[in-house]
Amino acid sequence: MTASTLITHIGSLVTNDPSLPDADPASGPLGVLRDAAVAIEGDRIAWVGPSSRAPATDNAVDADGRALLPGFVDSHSHLVFAGDRTAEFAARMSGRPYTAGGIRTTVAATRAASDAELSGAVGRYVAEALRQGTTTLETKSGYGLTVQDEARSLRIARAHTEETTYLGAHIVAPEFADDPAGYVALVTGEMLDACAPHARWVDVFCERGAFDGDQARAVLEAGRSRGLTPRVHANQLGHGPGVQLAVELGAASADHCTHLDDADVDALAGSGGATVATLLPGAEFSTRARYPDARRLLDAGVTVALSTDCNPGSSFTSSMPFCVAVAVRDMGMTPDEAVHAATYGGARALRRDDVGRVTPGARADLLLLDAPSHVHLAYRPGVPLTSAVWRRGKAAYLR
Amino acid sequence: MTASTLITHIGSLVTNDPSLPDADPASGPLGVLRDAAVAIEGDRIAWVGPSSRAPATDNAVDADGRALLPGFVDSHSHLVFAGDRTAEFAARMSGRPYTAGGIRTTVAATRAASDAELSGAVGRYVAEALRQGTTTLETKSGYGLTVQDEARSLRIARAHTEETTYLGAHIVAPEFADDPAGYVALVTGEMLDACAPHARWVDVFCERGAFDGDQARAVLEAGRSRGLTPRVHANQLGHGPGVQLAVELGAASADHCTHLDDADVDALAGSGGATVATLLPGAEFSTRARYPDARRLLDAGVTVALSTDCNPGSSFTSSMPFCVAVAVRDMGMTPDEAVHAATYGGARALRRDDVGRVTPGARADLLLLDAPSHVHLAYRPGVPLTSAVWRRGKAAYLR
Ligand SMILES: [Zn+2]
Ligand SMILES: [Zn+2]
Repeated sequence: MTASTLITHIGSLVTNDPSLPDADPASGPLGVLRDAAVAIEGDRIAWVGPSSRAPATDNAVDADGRALLPGFVDSHSHLVFAGDRTAEFAARMSGRPYTAGGIRTTVAATRAASDAELSGAVGRYVAEALRQGTTTLETKSGYGLTVQDEARSLRIARAHTEETTYLGAHIVAPEFADDPAGYVALVTGEMLDACAPHARWVDVFCERGAFDGDQARAVLEAGRSRGLTPRVHANQLGHGPGVQLAVELGAASADHCTHLDDADVDALAGSGGATVATLLPGAEFSTRARYPDARRLLDAGVTVALSTDCNPGSSFTSSMPFCVAVAVRDMGMTPDEAVHAATYGGARALRRDDVGRVTPGARADLLLLDAPSHVHLAYRPGVPLTSAVWRRGKAAYLR
Repeated sequence: MTASTLITHIGSLVTNDPSLPDADPASGPLGVLRDAAVAIEGDRIAWVGPSSRAPATDNAVDADGRALLPGFVDSHSHLVFAGDRTAEFAARMSGRPYTAGGIRTTVAATRAASDAELSGAVGRYVAEALRQGTTTLETKSGYGLTVQDEARSLRIARAHTEETTYLGAHIVAPEFADDPAGYVALVTGEMLDACAPHARWVDVFCERGAFDGDQARAVLEAGRSRGLTPRVHANQLGHGPGVQLAVELGAASADHCTHLDDADVDALAGSGGATVATLLPGAEFSTRARYPDARRLLDAGVTVALSTDCNPGSSFTSSMPFCVAVAVRDMGMTPDEAVHAATYGGARALRRDDVGRVTPGARADLLLLDAPSHVHLAYRPGVPLTSAVWRRGKAAYLR
């Protein structure tokens, strides 16, 4: 075999495949190899093993002892938007009152923006995320809230990622403030018809002030009947029926999971990993809210993902390394668990086997760190540690 | 006048000089100008004002609405070290016992390292900080703890920065474990003689388990008698005499200030800004400790600085933007106050008038953000926002 690219002398390689024969058993689910090499053929991983047994190549990259891991899988973001909410953030963090419209500000600006403006912005955020190691990224509609604006949001998103989510049920559209049932009918009817061809997932914000359990069920079941798989914004601001509903309907993910009772934790654990708990520490960081208890979920056997929730209102970070660091500081995760959740966990939340792992047959989506270990993602918070990124086998970023 | 470099169309310019005629009075001490320009002559700022009145130039840089601010002044770091403490960090954050030597591990590795290894590492950290917008950086000895190793640490540091601090009194050297008085005699005698020529500042770790009030006083007074100005590691792990001592001896800065009583706050406020409270959120972040209460200090009229404390044991971040974001999230600072503390505050902590401000005559040390406002440093946590950095008038980094 001759590899098209061979990365050698990887000081520490996170594979998330502990079944690899050279993985260190002490590294558990991370499946870490030392002084390792990875061979890429086309867009796929062809071989993983010790540097000393690496295949021949014409194109070798010497990692010089640095750490390599799967590119991050950011399974929850809201990137199709326009407008500026800097003043709202500054007011909130300064204890000043701020009376403008919150999410409605973004809806108005998004509707008013051109396709080119929206697409340009999505492209900039995707590139920004890539420079920080994110190679798979889910993103949602939800700032259009009309048939046309939701459909074009998803069309635009689809040009940048295959992981698109229909979130017409983000909030009740302003035009339906007095008729939420009418809005749910639109979301489950005409809007769904227009959006389903451009989406893989259906999502709903199940929270007091947004959509209740019955409305959320209607949205998710309608989406499912059109071939979309559910995921749910659940239990972020208070306790509610979102998590239970997610598990019952076979959602791939219950996102936020900040306010859980024992029955919620049991339900997630009982799903056997089918419904992932996706934790979004950027939201709690940027709203000074209480963090979700990742330790409790992990100890119960729940599969956990970490994602950015990147959006202009409550979590304007695109940084998966930042989420890893905060999850370790404030959510009871170990560095190993946080890195696993930001890679393998995100892949599970998107029901993907081809990303989130460095193993033969997987996509060659790789992050080379300017550090000897993945632990540095938590140990060196805020420091940009990306040395290089490969996406589908191609060098996509080099510092 | 013809500027050697002119930066135009700055959407939002933080000057930290509210006396500038075009500064927005509503921006308070930040002295913000909108649609501004900055002219550089040699290594200095020559002119600041509205873009529409900018002088002629052959070398214009169009900021295209982005934000410009003074380069960060990181007034507290420990960069002269060798060795690896990743496993210690991982164990601490995983709740596993770890019995190796902590700071003594670093002392042993630093003593064993060559000059070239130490200098190479300092250079890499300084460059890493520069890419994140830090244009002035203080760093300390303190991992040598012998006459020779402290002196060479400072010689090496001095090759990278003019802001060097003699911290022979970091911990009692292992060789003097049974004779702390003998170690203080060394630190205030032969070691000081060897180190004073390479340092501007003298520092001491005044804390239970390190040096008590009397020992700290002896170290600082000895340094002062040799022309070094005091700064103090004070009240980090518990309440102690460090802050009072710092004010009494006219120290430029009391660093950490996590455990303060009312008398400490009064003393800092009573110094009239002579003794700055330098807060180091990276340390609390990376040790899961309680954060200092910046709000209390600011409300009392204390001058506050933010710094990284970059070191391999308790705070391995070199990221001033990260410190700004955490100070806003967890220490009660507004985004404006945090940015001011990370620039002007750091300059005050180093008693520098020529950095930390963008005003005629100041050093042309500038950070251009990939964002329309300095608020984004807190609003977009973890995201590398550096677009360009000028140091002493020269383009030092361009993304
Ligand atoms: Zn969301
Ligand atoms: Zn320190």
